Amino acid sequence: MTTAHGRILTPAFMPVGTAGTVKAVHQRELKDDIHAQIILGNTYHLYLRPGLKIMEQAGGLHKFIKWDLPLLTDSGGYQVYSLAERRKINEEGVSFTSHIDGSKHFFSPEYAMDIQRTIGADIIMAFDECTPYPCEHDYAKKSMEMTHRWLKRCCRRFDETEGKYGYDQTLFPIVQGSVYKDLRLQSAEAIAETNREGNAIGGLSVGEPAEMMYEMTEHVCSILPESKPRYLMGVGTPANILESIALGVDMFDCVMPTRNARNGMLFTSEGIINMRNEKWKDDYSEIDPNGTSFVDHEYSKAYLRHLVISKEILGAQIASIHNLSFYLHLVSEARKKIEEGNFLEWKNSMVKKLATRI
Amino acid sequence: MTTAHGRILTPAFMPVGTAGTVKAVHQRELKDDIHAQIILGNTYHLYLRPGLKIMEQAGGLHKFIKWDLPLLTDSGGYQVYSLAERRKINEEGVSFTSHIDGSKHFFSPEYAMDIQRTIGADIIMAFDECTPYPCEHDYAKKSMEMTHRWLKRCCRRFDETEGKYGYDQTLFPIVQGSVYKDLRLQSAEAIAETNREGNAIGGLSVGEPAEMMYEMTEHVCSILPESKPRYLMGVGTPANILESIALGVDMFDCVMPTRNARNGMLFTSEGIINMRNEKWKDDYSEIDPNGTSFVDHEYSKAYLRHLVISKEILGAQIASIHNLSFYLHLVSEARKKIEEGNFLEWKNSMVKKLATRI
Repeated sequence: MTTAHGRILTPAFMPVGTAGTVKAVHQRELKDDIHAQIILGNTYHLYLRPGLKIMEQAGGLHKFIKWDLPLLTDSGGYQVYSLAERRKINEEGVSFTSHIDGSKHFFSPEYAMDIQRTIGADIIMAFDECTPYPCEHDYAKKSMEMTHRWLKRCCRRFDETEGKYGYDQTLFPIVQGSVYKDLRLQSAEAIAETNREGNAIGGLSVGEPAEMMYEMTEHVCSILPESKPRYLMGVGTPANILESIALGVDMFDCVMPTRNARNGMLFTSEGIINMRNEKWKDDYSEIDPNGTSFVDHEYSKAYLRHLVISKEILGAQIASIHNLSFYLHLVSEARKKIEEGNFLEWKNSMVKKLATRI
Repeated sequence: MTTAHGRILTPAFMPVGTAGTVKAVHQRELKDDIHAQIILGNTYHLYLRPGLKIMEQAGGLHKFIKWDLPLLTDSGGYQVYSLAERRKINEEGVSFTSHIDGSKHFFSPEYAMDIQRTIGADIIMAFDECTPYPCEHDYAKKSMEMTHRWLKRCCRRFDETEGKYGYDQTLFPIVQGSVYKDLRLQSAEAIAETNREGNAIGGLSVGEPAEMMYEMTEHVCSILPESKPRYLMGVGTPANILESIALGVDMFDCVMPTRNARNGMLFTSEGIINMRNEKWKDDYSEIDPNGTSFVDHEYSKAYLRHLVISKEILGAQIASIHNLSFYLHLVSEARKKIEEGNFLEWKNSMVKKLATRI
C-alpha cells in the first residue's frame, strides 16, 4: 500500500514504538539493520506524554522522533482498557485516569480522531472497544454495536477534517465481535461497507486459544475485501503471523519481539532460545548463524547471555535488534514465497521449527 | 603508545566497559561514532561474572566482547574496596564477599596478575590499596608502603608469566599516597623505579577538593617520566581532564559520561545540560549543534527529554553516545592544540564554559 511517507510491501510487520521509540533501538537501526517499512505509535501513551502540545509544535510524530517512513497509530482504545485506571465507558466515550499521574481524561471517537490528526501518523485507527476474553455473547454483541456506532462518528470526524502537516492520512476501521462467528461476520460486513483504504481485525490475541483466533480471522477475511490491506492487530508469535498470512492477513504489529527480547528470549529460524538458560553460558557460536542483522554475527550466545544475566542494557539492545530483524525477514520471506507460489509448503515447514524450544 | 591491539594517541580518554560492555552502547558505535581508541574493563566484575573459565574459553575479553582495539583492565583493587562486602585486608591480600551472591573470594597481588592475564587486556594494572578521603597520614603511609610491596609481587608474577593468547600485555604500576605531598613524591619515585611502559596515579578523585587533586597530580608528574604515558585513574569531569592534561597527564577513564547520561545529564561545549529540566520540553533544536556524533544532529532536545522523562532505554543510548563522543572529541582537540602549541590558552577558555550549567 502507498502512504504519504512511502510504500509498504505486504505482508508487513510493524515494530511497536509505544512512546515514540521502539524500545532499545535507534531509528537508524530500524531503517538500516532491521529494514522496518513502517512503525507503530500508541495514541494513549503519546497523548499522556509528551502530550499534544509538544506533538503539534514538533510538527507531528514523524518529525518529533525523526522517522520519515510510514507511521501508524492505534486509537488509544486498547490501552485505555488495559492500562488506564478507573475507566468508565458509555455511549459518549471513555473516561479514565492516567496510569502515570492519576490525572483524569476523556476519549470520544471524535477526540480520538483529533488526537491522531495531531500525532500525524499516515494510518490512523478507529476508536473501538476491545472486548476481553472470555466475553459473553450478549456483551460482545452490545459492545460491537457500539463500536460500529463509534466508527460512524470516527468516519464523520475524519472526513470533515484534514491532515495538519500538509500530507494525507488514512483511517482504518476495526472489526470486533469477540470469538463469535455471527458477530465477526456481521462486524466485518459493517466495517467493509465503510469502504476505507484498509481494514483491521481487533479483539483477538487477548487470551483466546490460537485456533479460535485463526477461525475468527478466517471468517473475517472471507468478507473483508482482499484488494485492501487486512491488519490483524497485536499478533503475534512468528507462527501466528505465518498462519494468519495464510488466511489472508497483510499487516501485523506486536510488542513480543521487543518485550521478549528484554527478557532474554530470542526468536530464530531454528526455534525459540531462552538466553538465560545455563546451556548458552559457554556457547561461543554466533547468536544466529541464519540471522540477517549485524548483531547475529558480531556477538556470541555466551556474550549475549552474560549481558542478559548481568541486566546490561546492551543485552536488550542486541536481543531487540535480533528479534525485530528476524520478524521483518520472516515476513519478507513470506512475501517472496507468495510471489513464487510456494507459500503454503514453506509455511507448513516453518511453523513447526518456529515453535521449537532449543 | 603502542599495544598489541594498536596505537593509542594521547591524551586519551577510555570509556568504561565495566562488565564487558560500555553501558547502552554497541561496540560498532564505540568505534565508528565515538572513535574510542581503547576501552576499560573491570577485573572485579569480570572475575565474578562471567568468570575466568568463560573468559579463558572465549580467548580473552577482546574476543568475548568482539573488540579488536586496545583494552585496559584495572586490578580489581578499587572495586573490592568500594563494592565488595566484608572485605578484610592484610599483607597477603584482600578477602571479600561478592556483592552479587555473597560468595567468598581472595585477591592477592599475584592472583590479580593471573586474573588479568586470563582477561587478556593490553594494559593491566598493579594490585594496590586505594585509600579513602579523608585518610590519616599514618594510615596513608602504611598503606602506600604495602602497595609498594604488593607492586614488587605484581611485577615478579607478571615478569615470570606470559600473555595467554599469543600477544604481549604490559603492566602499569600505581602511585598512591593520599593527599600528602611527601607520600606522593615518595610513591612516584618508587613507581618510576620499576621502569614500566606507563605509570598510573591512583587514590585521587575519591572525594577530595579538585585543587588538592591537581596539586597531588602536579607533584607526581614532576617525578613520573614524561616520556611514558601517565594515567590518572577515575578522572573525571571535562574540566578536570583538561586541567590534568595541562599538568602532564596522558590517559583518563571515568564512568561519568555514561553514568550521568543515564541520569539525563549531558556534557557539551557550551556547558552542562540537565535534560530533565522543564526548559527543554519544547526545545526542538538539535541536541548539540557543535556535537560530533550522529545523535547530536539526528535528535532534538525535546525528544531526548521525553525519552529521559519516560525512562526509555533509547534516552540512555542517545545520551551515552553524546557524552562519550563529547569526551573523545575534547581530548582529541586537546591533542591538536598541544601540537599547535596553543593548548593553555584554549584550555583556560574551555574550562569556564565546560562547568557552566545551561
